[in-house]
Amino acid sequence: MHHFDNFPPNPLTLEGSAILHQMLKVRWLEWRALPTARRGEILAAALPVLIAIETGKSALFSLLGHKGDLMLVHFRDNLDGLGKVERDLQKLALWDYLELSHSYLSVVELGLYESTMKVYGSLAERSMEPHTPDWDKEIQETLERQRTAMQPRLFPEIPPHPYCCFYPMDRLRGEHKNWYLVPLAERQRMMADHGEIGRRYAGKVKQIISGSIGLDDWEWGVDLFAEEPTVFKQLIYEMRFDEVSAVYAKFGSFFVGRRTAAAEMGTLLAV
Amino acid sequence: MHHFDNFPPNPLTLEGSAILHQMLKVRWLEWRALPTARRGEILAAALPVLIAIETGKSALFSLLGHKGDLMLVHFRDNLDGLGKVERDLQKLALWDYLELSHSYLSVVELGLYESTMKVYGSLAERSMEPHTPDWDKEIQETLERQRTAMQPRLFPEIPPHPYCCFYPMDRLRGEHKNWYLVPLAERQRMMADHGEIGRRYAGKVKQIISGSIGLDDWEWGVDLFAEEPTVFKQLIYEMRFDEVSAVYAKFGSFFVGRRTAAAEMGTLLAV
Amino acid sequence: MHHFDNFPPNPLTLEGSAILHQMLKVRWLEWRALPTARRGEILAAALPVLIAIETGKSALFSLLGHKGDLMLVHFRDNLDGLGKVERDLQKLALWDYLELSHSYLSVVELGLYESTMKVYGSLAERSMEPHTPDWDKEIQETLERQRTAMQPRLFPEIPPHPYCCFYPMDRLRGEHKNWYLVPLAERQRMMADHGEIGRRYAGKVKQIISGSIGLDDWEWGVDLFAEEPTVFKQLIYEMRFDEVSAVYAKFGSFFVGRRTAAAEMGTLLAV
Amino acid sequence: MHHFDNFPPNPLTLEGSAILHQMLKVRWLEWRALPTARRGEILAAALPVLIAIETGKSALFSLLGHKGDLMLVHFRDNLDGLGKVERDLQKLALWDYLELSHSYLSVVELGLYESTMKVYGSLAERSMEPHTPDWDKEIQETLERQRTAMQPRLFPEIPPHPYCCFYPMDRLRGEHKNWYLVPLAERQRMMADHGEIGRRYAGKVKQIISGSIGLDDWEWGVDLFAEEPTVFKQLIYEMRFDEVSAVYAKFGSFFVGRRTAAAEMGTLLAV
Amino acid sequence: MHHFDNFPPNPLTLEGSAILHQMLKVRWLEWRALPTARRGEILAAALPVLIAIETGKSALFSLLGHKGDLMLVHFRDNLDGLGKVERDLQKLALWDYLELSHSYLSVVELGLYESTMKVYGSLAERSMEPHTPDWDKEIQETLERQRTAMQPRLFPEIPPHPYCCFYPMDRLRGEHKNWYLVPLAERQRMMADHGEIGRRYAGKVKQIISGSIGLDDWEWGVDLFAEEPTVFKQLIYEMRFDEVSAVYAKFGSFFVGRRTAAAEMGTLLAV
Repeated sequence: MHHFDNFPPNPLTLEGSAILHQMLKVRWLEWRALPTARRGEILAAALPVLIAIETGKSALFSLLGHKGDLMLVHFRDNLDGLGKVERDLQKLALWDYLELSHSYLSVVELGLYESTMKVYGSLAERSMEPHTPDWDKEIQETLERQRTAMQPRLFPEIPPHPYCCFYPMDRLRGEHKNWYLVPLAERQRMMADHGEIGRRYAGKVKQIISGSIGLDDWEWGVDLFAEEPTVFKQLIYEMRFDEVSAVYAKFGSFFVGRRTAAAEMGTLLAV
Repeated sequence: MHHFDNFPPNPLTLEGSAILHQMLKVRWLEWRALPTARRGEILAAALPVLIAIETGKSALFSLLGHKGDLMLVHFRDNLDGLGKVERDLQKLALWDYLELSHSYLSVVELGLYESTMKVYGSLAERSMEPHTPDWDKEIQETLERQRTAMQPRLFPEIPPHPYCCFYPMDRLRGEHKNWYLVPLAERQRMMADHGEIGRRYAGKVKQIISGSIGLDDWEWGVDLFAEEPTVFKQLIYEMRFDEVSAVYAKFGSFFVGRRTAAAEMGTLLAV
Repeated sequence: MHHFDNFPPNPLTLEGSAILHQMLKVRWLEWRALPTARRGEILAAALPVLIAIETGKSALFSLLGHKGDLMLVHFRDNLDGLGKVERDLQKLALWDYLELSHSYLSVVELGLYESTMKVYGSLAERSMEPHTPDWDKEIQETLERQRTAMQPRLFPEIPPHPYCCFYPMDRLRGEHKNWYLVPLAERQRMMADHGEIGRRYAGKVKQIISGSIGLDDWEWGVDLFAEEPTVFKQLIYEMRFDEVSAVYAKFGSFFVGRRTAAAEMGTLLAV
Repeated sequence: MHHFDNFPPNPLTLEGSAILHQMLKVRWLEWRALPTARRGEILAAALPVLIAIETGKSALFSLLGHKGDLMLVHFRDNLDGLGKVERDLQKLALWDYLELSHSYLSVVELGLYESTMKVYGSLAERSMEPHTPDWDKEIQETLERQRTAMQPRLFPEIPPHPYCCFYPMDRLRGEHKNWYLVPLAERQRMMADHGEIGRRYAGKVKQIISGSIGLDDWEWGVDLFAEEPTVFKQLIYEMRFDEVSAVYAKFGSFFVGRRTAAAEMGTLLAV
Repeated sequence: MHHFDNFPPNPLTLEGSAILHQMLKVRWLEWRALPTARRGEILAAALPVLIAIETGKSALFSLLGHKGDLMLVHFRDNLDGLGKVERDLQKLALWDYLELSHSYLSVVELGLYESTMKVYGSLAERSMEPHTPDWDKEIQETLERQRTAMQPRLFPEIPPHPYCCFYPMDRLRGEHKNWYLVPLAERQRMMADHGEIGRRYAGKVKQIISGSIGLDDWEWGVDLFAEEPTVFKQLIYEMRFDEVSAVYAKFGSFFVGRRTAAAEMGTLLAV
């Protein structure tokens, strides 16, 4: 079986909000070396900015472990919106006492495996040659229709759950097992099986997938939100036995944090 | 042989205490640059906090080598408990002179391979379809029964032995050898063989396994506790020839430390 | 099939401008610790230098994420030109407040797969032995002809688009899949297929390929320029299903930035 | 052939001295910023401690290259002895000007491949079941006998040669080539061949093997001592063509240093 | 085919000068923070030392990119000579403002593949057993004869060309493709083919190969010297299609620098 059985082999995808994850370490020694009054001033200047961005579009988490003390997650309409929030934060004196230890840039992505199979099939039946103007027009119409239908999922608010788990991932391109050479129909089947596990956790875990090919060092970012963090372990462990994960998933670092109101920043900074 | 011979392929697991390992380097230059009196004050302020958490729920170790000078191990009921201890420590002035060089986040895990085989078998004999409400109910009952029986092992105290060895590990997902594609029955047999070696060391080594899928960068964390550290080497070397380790285990960094009473912190800090 | 079917196996290539990418992090704490007047002076001294190099030959981008705050891209006639711009920048007091977190050295490269096939074929038909003086002369003439024709593509201006995506890449030399053992004719076919995808994006993305074998740690650098950054993701995702990318491409870190006039440096430095 | 042909598959091993390698970088800027008199004081306070430990049990080397300026090698009876020397050094003001850039923890190990083959064979002939009390007793007696005979090799002095080469190594556990699945008899043969090369260098190189499974990040540490350092290259190059090294050895970083009397510490610190 | 067809499998090699590459980053902030007069003094104290070592035995290069600002290359008769130059440099106040970001330790090596084939063949014809005293004597005589003949290539001056390219490399020891298992005769043929490409560049590139097995983290170091740096790319690209490189070469980081007279150090330090 070979991916050229379907042509083109790439599934149609939709892009939505631009997302930036910022992982931050507090420079405790420098921060605590400041006079108490100065720390108060710096915090007072930062709070309105942090509170202003915390409107479903940015969220603050306290991270567990050495990878960072804080994580800021920003959802914006596009990369320019993310650039603006980055510059707004850099202007704060508080920023000098936070080290950006890691970050991740991506855009909300919906992979339309089922629609792709349908529209490619229908266009093939009508003997339309891929990448001809007529073919392109039909594809664009499909995308436009889906984009309208999916609008809320493409530009979501940050879910309000108290726990967040973020990790980046790739699909394997090994010398023997290579996701990008698997026929589209098989990939669609595996993704559907994968989705079934997700649906069993629907009430417990809210998942947002973002794509980062061409934007950051892994191909996708995954954000999970839940009331109770043990469910992250249960869901991901169960999925690991899934064909698409067992064989084709490569995982980066995992970041687990607890949602905190920006107004509570002083508590996180031990002021 | 293929893992779809058993369905679902994942073993039932129980989760208990949340665990955080914190590896710390002393900032000797900055610490020793403080006036003696100030160091005394800082230590005096830290000791009550360190002693208070040292009640079977947190333990202090002096590490050997460059990976860290100290290791704090925290067992708590959940991630919130770990977040609280992190923030309590960050409030100490002492924290400014300790660099968090590494950490590991996990939860105590018991993999119920034998119970899983039994209950899956019994449900299959009764022709119950996986993931139906009835099937789920039976699984939940099995889990609940085991959870009650295993309570002390799920929420253990930190063993009092003077030596600790901690390391994270993964199961291999290679292009040819892939743990997650091995049938459940075979995995159960390999885990049982593996456990037999462990049992031969029962009097000498106390082992606590924690799961970290979805929580940290490896799949499991292993803590070994012993009176005499050479036994770590002997046990792990013997296990390396074990099928499940020889073929399917990938190991991260090893951290070896000696238990120290929090009250002895001054000695470790050369005050 | 084996690469010795064609001899020599390496495609003719042309080299043009030398390129240096410099990724920079602002040392916020040290920078902001300076008196406002001193920051103004430092910036005033730097601006004329930055503006002077910004003439189609150097460009400033604000980067997204933790890999850097700024990216300077320099196109020069040769490595000496790059050395000169490096030293000019090092002379600025501003340079002390910028940490060179990453860089990439390469030269514009055009791989002449089609011309190579033609000229090798024609020389073989005329029974000319490779690497004999006559053979070399014909090859040199081909290269010279192409060099003249390609002059504008070999020494391009930096495209004026607002968004840039840079990443380095290698061709796989695995134990089973090895680009450098694939026959030249097959490599030429795969590169032609690859180019076809690129051509479909011609109006939207401007691409500059540079070679870095013997100059930096990957074999090639890729710069993409566009009005709208989502197209980077779409183009590279589509190409990933391409045989030459799916099987033979290894990717390094991705850097995404927004073009900023050097005169706006003060804004990026939050002055 | 499979390792279950011999059971148990692990060779008997003996453990001796605990070893700690400490690689150190001088913090030149901070060190030289001290007044000359203060540097003299710090050195004067450190010398007696350094000289006291330099009695066949600890040795000082000046390293070549950027991995460290100095290397301290400590041989002690057990890990507690190493912990003590670590704390003694941390108490020195000199320690504040030395950065512990790397370290390695291990214990002298003798792998008794030949004795293992003999005793396993003899016990099998007498139909004794592995891991039964009788079997264990015989094994313990073999170990005890060997331990007595090997005492000087288990607790050696640090050889006095002027040059030292240290590196850690693993045995390969690949998907196709896996040392831990090779039958014991074959491993014994390969180790014997390997030892033969070593014996040809006996007069020129003194080798001490230490085991670090469960103690540090590689499985073994190798220390070579010689009058003339080129012999390190010649020996290791010749061994690389050896089956056990060519196929099954993975190497970490190499550290090469020249023995220096602790009394000469001032010279190394450019005082 | 198997390497035991030839015995011993390792080629005879000769060792010459000991080489140390030192890559250095200027600590711009600390350096420029010094009063102008102090910088002048420090430079004035350093120049005579730098100029004295610059006599065909040490050379200074300005590096391009973030891997370092400067590279010092030292050729000495042995490791003691390198240790001495290291200590001489560490004594300079200038050294406090240079961070040793990387280094490489190796010795000039000539691999005598052809002589090896001849002498092994001749000794085999005379039925001489390898590693017997007579066999060893003949080998030593061959080595001595070659050592005398090759003296100038074993202890070369640093070539005076303006550009240098340095990189370390390994031969692959994969699970399927393993250089150290290839028969000697085949390795000799591949090395001869490889050398032929080198000879075509003889007038343009001067190459010095050094061995670093047992000395540093890769097996070999390669130094290329040229008038024009594009030739580094052309030569290495052409060689990459070579069997020995395409299949068996693994490359480390590449460092490219321009020769600068030590007297020009002030210019590189922007004084």
